[in-house]
Amino acid sequence: MSNIRIVIIGAGNVATNLAKVFKSKLSADVHIHNRTENSAKQLADKLQMTYSFDINELPVEADLYVISVSDDAISELCQDTVLKNKINNKLVVHTAGSINSEILNELSANYGVFYPLQTFSKIKTVDFSNIPLCLEANSGFNYNTLSKLAFQISEDVRKISSEQRKHIHLAAVFANNFSNHMFSIAENLLKEQDIDFDILIPLINETVDKIQKKNPNKVQTGPAARNDEEVLNKHSELLKDHPDLKKIYSLVSENIKNN
Amino acid sequence: MSNIRIVIIGAGNVATNLAKVFKSKLSADVHIHNRTENSAKQLADKLQMTYSFDINELPVEADLYVISVSDDAISELCQDTVLKNKINNKLVVHTAGSINSEILNELSANYGVFYPLQTFSKIKTVDFSNIPLCLEANSGFNYNTLSKLAFQISEDVRKISSEQRKHIHLAAVFANNFSNHMFSIAENLLKEQDIDFDILIPLINETVDKIQKKNPNKVQTGPAARNDEEVLNKHSELLKDHPDLKKIYSLVSENIKNN
Repeated sequence: MSNIRIVIIGAGNVATNLAKVFKSKLSADVHIHNRTENSAKQLADKLQMTYSFDINELPVEADLYVISVSDDAISELCQDTVLKNKINNKLVVHTAGSINSEILNELSANYGVFYPLQTFSKIKTVDFSNIPLCLEANSGFNYNTLSKLAFQISEDVRKISSEQRKHIHLAAVFANNFSNHMFSIAENLLKEQDIDFDILIPLINETVDKIQKKNPNKVQTGPAARNDEEVLNKHSELLKDHPDLKKIYSLVSENIKNN
Repeated sequence: MSNIRIVIIGAGNVATNLAKVFKSKLSADVHIHNRTENSAKQLADKLQMTYSFDINELPVEADLYVISVSDDAISELCQDTVLKNKINNKLVVHTAGSINSEILNELSANYGVFYPLQTFSKIKTVDFSNIPLCLEANSGFNYNTLSKLAFQISEDVRKISSEQRKHIHLAAVFANNFSNHMFSIAENLLKEQDIDFDILIPLINETVDKIQKKNPNKVQTGPAARNDEEVLNKHSELLKDHPDLKKIYSLVSENIKNN
């Protein structure tokens, strides 16, 4: 049996990591398409894949088309009749958190979503084996196709509706982007005292170690959780020159108290 | 040479963990004092130490007195003349983030701070070997005494002023309590969709893995960081029944954009 042929549209963080793992875990023949020639070429050269930047050059022989571009760009691509003809009703998926699967109906009768719940960067290769792969498809047949591929990549494959996926994406923003921003605020506050951020690493590691076994609601600590007004007031005072941080401090503290 | 004798006043999370590590790493004779008899007895019995709950029973022979109680209770203890007479100008430290060291001047001419930058719980034993121990003392002699003890416990011992320590404590609230609350919010949002929190664990682990090498300001991602108004609006809409979370979402997103 010949290798599965996959076209990835996009050359960003998700596209890069999917291209790598499709090649390594599925032994797939991967073709990279991106409208910016340079990004397409760079990624394809690095991973020894073929590439294109003109939609007219997109291969028609692929088994699976994976659209991994920004939310705006997905909507645009769905209106592209050249792309539609290329795909010719073969299976197409997008990888976005907050976009309905049905939008792909414009492009093909066979569509779905392949949403890996992870934060990716181009330079760091991520181990996919425990990354939750959130799948959706317009039919049971297409779901099974995606699911078989997904289980070759990760042991955590889940059937997730568009509605659920949106909320997962929102939850992920809190859990990843916002927690990282809390670390950034801490970094900035320490910098003002000439203290390096590394002093907080053991504390942060312990914070995250705790939630491996117990849910975060159960392990909340700190002045807000124990309603320690004295410390809360002192901290508010320390933030008097940072009105934005003072607002965040008080809003998050209130929310902890009410939780 | 006989073992160092340490009196710990308090029986909470920090007191419990210090009692354990003083015994294991310093081979100290530790005495637990707590005004609630039950807490004192429970902790002392578990760790096979002596204990007291009446301040008149506090040993006078200790080399070091460690006050590890709530901020309010520290202020109270500093007015306690029985305690002052017991300490009799021997070395006394507190373990609080947001209290000046000078407050202890009321109790003894020899005082300082022993602030371990970590989140503790009674049930989980923490490895102290890389926990930053933030020390302060009223004299070089007392600093050296504390520092020698501290280096037997951790390889990360730092001289930190009361002013710096307050800001470290504030930074720690953002890095630990607030990041954990972001995880809690995510947990609650997922629960509404019947999705278990564990789906976010690989994402959170990766978030924290990234900041082991690069500072959080450098690795910020997400819709706010890339100014993706479409996703930001969608998320805001998803939070329409959670006005408090909507406020937090918009305030933190704005702060990420301006950072």
